[in-house]
Amino acid sequence: MTTPLRIGIAGLGTVGAGVVKIVQARANLIAQRGGRPITISAVSARTRDKDRGVDLSAYAWEDDPVVLARREDIDVFVELMGGSDGPAKAATEAAIAAGKDVVTANKAMLAVHGQALAEAAEAADRVIRFEAAVAGGIPVVKALTEGLAGNQITRVMGVMNGTCNYILTRMESEGLPYEKVFEEANALGYLEADPTLDVGGIDAGHKLSLLAAIAFGTRVDFPAMELEGIERISIDDIHHAADMGFRIKLLGVAQMTGRGLEQRMSPCLVPATSPLGQLEGPTNMVVLEGDAVGQIVLRGAGAGEGPTASAVMADVIDIARGTRVSTFGQPAAGLAQSRAARASAAAPYYLRMELEDKPGALAKVAAALGEAGISIDRMRQYRHAASTAPVLVVTHKTTRDALDHARAGFAATGVVVGDPVAIRIEEV
Amino acid sequence: MTTPLRIGIAGLGTVGAGVVKIVQARANLIAQRGGRPITISAVSARTRDKDRGVDLSAYAWEDDPVVLARREDIDVFVELMGGSDGPAKAATEAAIAAGKDVVTANKAMLAVHGQALAEAAEAADRVIRFEAAVAGGIPVVKALTEGLAGNQITRVMGVMNGTCNYILTRMESEGLPYEKVFEEANALGYLEADPTLDVGGIDAGHKLSLLAAIAFGTRVDFPAMELEGIERISIDDIHHAADMGFRIKLLGVAQMTGRGLEQRMSPCLVPATSPLGQLEGPTNMVVLEGDAVGQIVLRGAGAGEGPTASAVMADVIDIARGTRVSTFGQPAAGLAQSRAARASAAAPYYLRMELEDKPGALAKVAAALGEAGISIDRMRQYRHAASTAPVLVVTHKTTRDALDHARAGFAATGVVVGDPVAIRIEEV
Repeated sequence: MTTPLRIGIAGLGTVGAGVVKIVQARANLIAQRGGRPITISAVSARTRDKDRGVDLSAYAWEDDPVVLARREDIDVFVELMGGSDGPAKAATEAAIAAGKDVVTANKAMLAVHGQALAEAAEAADRVIRFEAAVAGGIPVVKALTEGLAGNQITRVMGVMNGTCNYILTRMESEGLPYEKVFEEANALGYLEADPTLDVGGIDAGHKLSLLAAIAFGTRVDFPAMELEGIERISIDDIHHAADMGFRIKLLGVAQMTGRGLEQRMSPCLVPATSPLGQLEGPTNMVVLEGDAVGQIVLRGAGAGEGPTASAVMADVIDIARGTRVSTFGQPAAGLAQSRAARASAAAPYYLRMELEDKPGALAKVAAALGEAGISIDRMRQYRHAASTAPVLVVTHKTTRDALDHARAGFAATGVVVGDPVAIRIEEV
Repeated sequence: MTTPLRIGIAGLGTVGAGVVKIVQARANLIAQRGGRPITISAVSARTRDKDRGVDLSAYAWEDDPVVLARREDIDVFVELMGGSDGPAKAATEAAIAAGKDVVTANKAMLAVHGQALAEAAEAADRVIRFEAAVAGGIPVVKALTEGLAGNQITRVMGVMNGTCNYILTRMESEGLPYEKVFEEANALGYLEADPTLDVGGIDAGHKLSLLAAIAFGTRVDFPAMELEGIERISIDDIHHAADMGFRIKLLGVAQMTGRGLEQRMSPCLVPATSPLGQLEGPTNMVVLEGDAVGQIVLRGAGAGEGPTASAVMADVIDIARGTRVSTFGQPAAGLAQSRAARASAAAPYYLRMELEDKPGALAKVAAALGEAGISIDRMRQYRHAASTAPVLVVTHKTTRDALDHARAGFAATGVVVGDPVAIRIEEV
């Protein structure tokens, strides 16, 4: 058991450098825990000459991650390049074909190619592990795959994009508009190169699709996810929600229903005093619900050098210890193709719309709601200087079909300007 | 991989029956996830003729758990009897000697005999797993041992006795005295046969000592823990704390310092708005802090049939999957004997004392604090009907040595009646 486990790292951004730091700084501790030393044989990145704050001189360098993945002197290929296709996928496939285990932080790749990669790995008797791909340092993949393995999972929820949560909480705390905080986040390097991945909910959706596959024994089905980003959330929505005791979060929910698998990632109102409502800044929170265990809540840093590198190292140490678990917690070939179901459970909704400043306008909106069978919990019209007046409605529980009906009714009133904002109120 | 993993269960109380239910109800799911069926070969309990709400007719019965532990037709001995010594220990030792893996929910046994049992298991190349021993269904042993294996752990904290938290939160919500809620909890079956295990902090202390061993690579050292129960907490303390924005929790803290390992389980004041402060009823919360991952918080049901059985099944399924991790996360022989350190970090304190209703009494107390070098953040004297007046002090950060100094000073004033209550205010 003193044979070292040799890793090769492709991708030396923040997380890659973080992994190198842990391997160097905690060699003894890791060897004690893993039962054998963990060493780095080779590394790869796009540019070689760049100060990454770590000494890489002891490791072989490969320009091509595919070549790195095939090296004889590595046992585990650590993929930290990102991107659903391209070099990340090519190198991961090469690693599996060459008989290497794989540790990756790449949610996009697994959300798109997870099934094929898992099947390839299992055919080669190799493992793919991806703790770092979901919720940074929170060991949520492990908690779900292993810690709750005796449960029929009933629901998975989570705030899993730290950047979106940072933007939403900072809009509220500073009273700043979305565009302004978006630019701040960008300047701080919080946003992906393509910011739509973050603010469009895609990154968080990728993560939720991976958890759903584990939870429900289904093939990853990211395209079936109902996806809505935070771009339409205004500072007014945030203030109005706060007035009524809510906070707005980009919340993912996955659950298996009689009609199929519901997966949605969208802005929701949650009670301001709930654990999800209190989540500040880039912190992530995942809620796992099982038939035996009830509700488990996990909270921690969702991104960043240390937390993500911690998750990568947990996977590497598991491999050193000889732990072999199927990628999604059971043999990939046995994963069912889920039937996608539109989220249909009734819920209260928050509606914001602009009304023309005409007598009877509010009554027309109320009537349209009534005709759609939607009853009103609270309704507020705000003071206004312009020719239109903002009106807020919190409905009692209603369905999305009824809501669609009401939307059509609003359009027919002739007093609703533009497209009303509708945000689900989640009971958490 | 279709050879079933055969378990024998000793102890058929709530948790044992819960494990039987899961094995029966979720056989297919478990076989999918574990890679092989999990079957029950034999069971054992003190009394055979008792309706446990489960059909045990398909399983062999043993009156003696030691005989059960040695049966040829079991691979894993599931110990759910409890008690640090006696049959639980004898049967666990017998199981290891007979080449069985062990899954146990027995914190008392591991807190006292964990080192010897871990060494025996490792010598026999067997594993002992105990997720169910700490914080019920929350996969905290796994999170710490595996999920954070790449971290130098800096601190472990937690509310890990649901009964104590139930008592404290119910005292506050109902305005009831300790004795009354204690009796309610007893009538509800929430208390151990020896209630001191719960309200004296011993049960929670056992759990913390196990987490500390994993976190710091030290031998379990329960006797070195500073232990204080909730018996002295009055409804007045709870109300006064609430007035000042705090809640009282039985909180465990373990951290490694330059002087040695600090382990304490004692009532603490925590901010009412903090995650720990908001913990209601029998829920548990564990906070893990590592150098790379930062702070991870886990919350869930700390006891009960389903949650505890969920944890037992996670361990059994891990064994079915072939996962082999050392009992405390590294070879037992390599665990260091920790030097016990008295918790010495400065902290603010809450003090409550009864003063004789005499002119100058308050000044004498203030002077005693000043002489001990303790500065006062807030001080309140309450209205009173009796001949003594309750006085509360919240200090600025101070040390326990200074506090001992002040206590001696209080005694010398001649106006402090009885022994003042001092509760640490924890920054969480």
